[in-house]
Amino acid sequence: MDALIRLIRERGRPVVAGLDPTLADIPAHISEGARDFEGAAQRVFDFNKGLIDALYDVVPAVKPQSAFYEALGWRGVRALSETIDYAKSKGLYVILDGKRGDVGSTAEAYARAYLGDGGLGAAFGADALTVNAYTGSDGVTPFAEAAKKYGKAIFALVKTSNPSSSEIQDLDVGGARVYEAMGRLCSEWGAGDVGGFGYSSVGAVVGATYPEEAAALRAALKRTFFLVPGYGFQGGSAEQVKHAFDKDGGGAVVNNSRGLMYAWKKEGCDEKDYANAARRAAIKMRDDIKL
Amino acid sequence: MDALIRLIRERGRPVVAGLDPTLADIPAHISEGARDFEGAAQRVFDFNKGLIDALYDVVPAVKPQSAFYEALGWRGVRALSETIDYAKSKGLYVILDGKRGDVGSTAEAYARAYLGDGGLGAAFGADALTVNAYTGSDGVTPFAEAAKKYGKAIFALVKTSNPSSSEIQDLDVGGARVYEAMGRLCSEWGAGDVGGFGYSSVGAVVGATYPEEAAALRAALKRTFFLVPGYGFQGGSAEQVKHAFDKDGGGAVVNNSRGLMYAWKKEGCDEKDYANAARRAAIKMRDDIKL
Repeated sequence: MDALIRLIRERGRPVVAGLDPTLADIPAHISEGARDFEGAAQRVFDFNKGLIDALYDVVPAVKPQSAFYEALGWRGVRALSETIDYAKSKGLYVILDGKRGDVGSTAEAYARAYLGDGGLGAAFGADALTVNAYTGSDGVTPFAEAAKKYGKAIFALVKTSNPSSSEIQDLDVGGARVYEAMGRLCSEWGAGDVGGFGYSSVGAVVGATYPEEAAALRAALKRTFFLVPGYGFQGGSAEQVKHAFDKDGGGAVVNNSRGLMYAWKKEGCDEKDYANAARRAAIKMRDDIKL
Repeated sequence: MDALIRLIRERGRPVVAGLDPTLADIPAHISEGARDFEGAAQRVFDFNKGLIDALYDVVPAVKPQSAFYEALGWRGVRALSETIDYAKSKGLYVILDGKRGDVGSTAEAYARAYLGDGGLGAAFGADALTVNAYTGSDGVTPFAEAAKKYGKAIFALVKTSNPSSSEIQDLDVGGARVYEAMGRLCSEWGAGDVGGFGYSSVGAVVGATYPEEAAALRAALKRTFFLVPGYGFQGGSAEQVKHAFDKDGGGAVVNNSRGLMYAWKKEGCDEKDYANAARRAAIKMRDDIKL
């Protein structure tokens, strides 16, 4: 997790810019003329490129959400690959939000795809990947091992930001909740790979919308770095996200997707200025979080 | 789930052929000369095409495991897309094993990608998708709605076949286990879309390696169809998979990946005969299961 933490400190801002574009929502001067997946994928990449150019020196990381690229078929996945490459060329840390999870050789294949090297080279070459650990340790170990081997990181879903996350995650398992059990497992999975800043390469996804749970997890998991979704659009406030951070203002990074990607809509500026609007919103977000 | 059940009855065999190829494991006469992702993806598709040609009239369904295609980058995902198209052209039911899961608009994007239609057409056009429902109802509803709208199906992870599935899935939540709670949710999610054979469009993944749990789930979830991994390579026997079926020998379909893909290795025949070896193994599997 050191590479991410170093960039957060350099930029002075624990903010991840989510890159989750849909053709219908991006500015018309970019989206116009897209009539098939090829055209849509090209325009999504163009949109991302504009955002990355405007954001790379003010945020440490971007988080492309794989679903929005997969929705455009393999051409969309090519645009995802191009987005990762371009963001990395600008010095950004890339967290691929894929929530992948499986067991055995399948988990190894996912880990190789996103974090590693399959012999033919790095298929996607992200710096970090979100994973779903419902399968338990032998589903996560291949990812954790790849993270350690390649100097990458993973973030396992612990307490997600959505309203019905309680249905499974809050079930009482004898004095604790399922998400607390998952948090403890994250701590164990990362124990063998703690970096120079005191955080391991196995992080946790902890939603901004559950501040009490985030505070309790923060207190319990000293070496687990948090990726915090749910700020902004999903209702998580600056006041709420504070609970995910440690006493030094470290230990967490907050994602903002729509609040940056579509900042021009909220600001009311010309849509051609969307990238600068995203930059202004990212800068404002630091002041909002006020750690 | 009707389309799958109809094909199972027509073929007389509740067997899904897993398509999880890795370049290193496929016959040398196909893999030779692959020096990059482009070449590897082409050869993986060629391998699949041979299997599909040999299997389409003896098995009802194929299950490509997305990880093995993603491991070859976007070119691998293109090979996945070609595999889905080719299998469908041969009349096979295609279950994409992606274990996707997320919330809100992201879950909608995944559902659109694999089960639906994004306005530009069907990105992948699978018949069914495996999903991970750790996020709860608002992560699954978009998939369930897409399944209902497009006449497709989903299979949510309930009790997975791996040894450490117990860590989260077997936690006691007050007289029941997490996987039982998940099973009940599957039943609820599917209640609004029960087909002519009595099974809903929201199925469950239940590992062959846990026969007692499978039997209890089978008894509890009358309208939930089971996708059963873990037969063969992972140690699940014919005796064990029986517990996933209802009293009429319906209600479940058993996956076999390596046992069919690499049947020639076990049989000891020429690797050029890999497709016919897969066919012979698929036919033998019906006799083995003996429902």
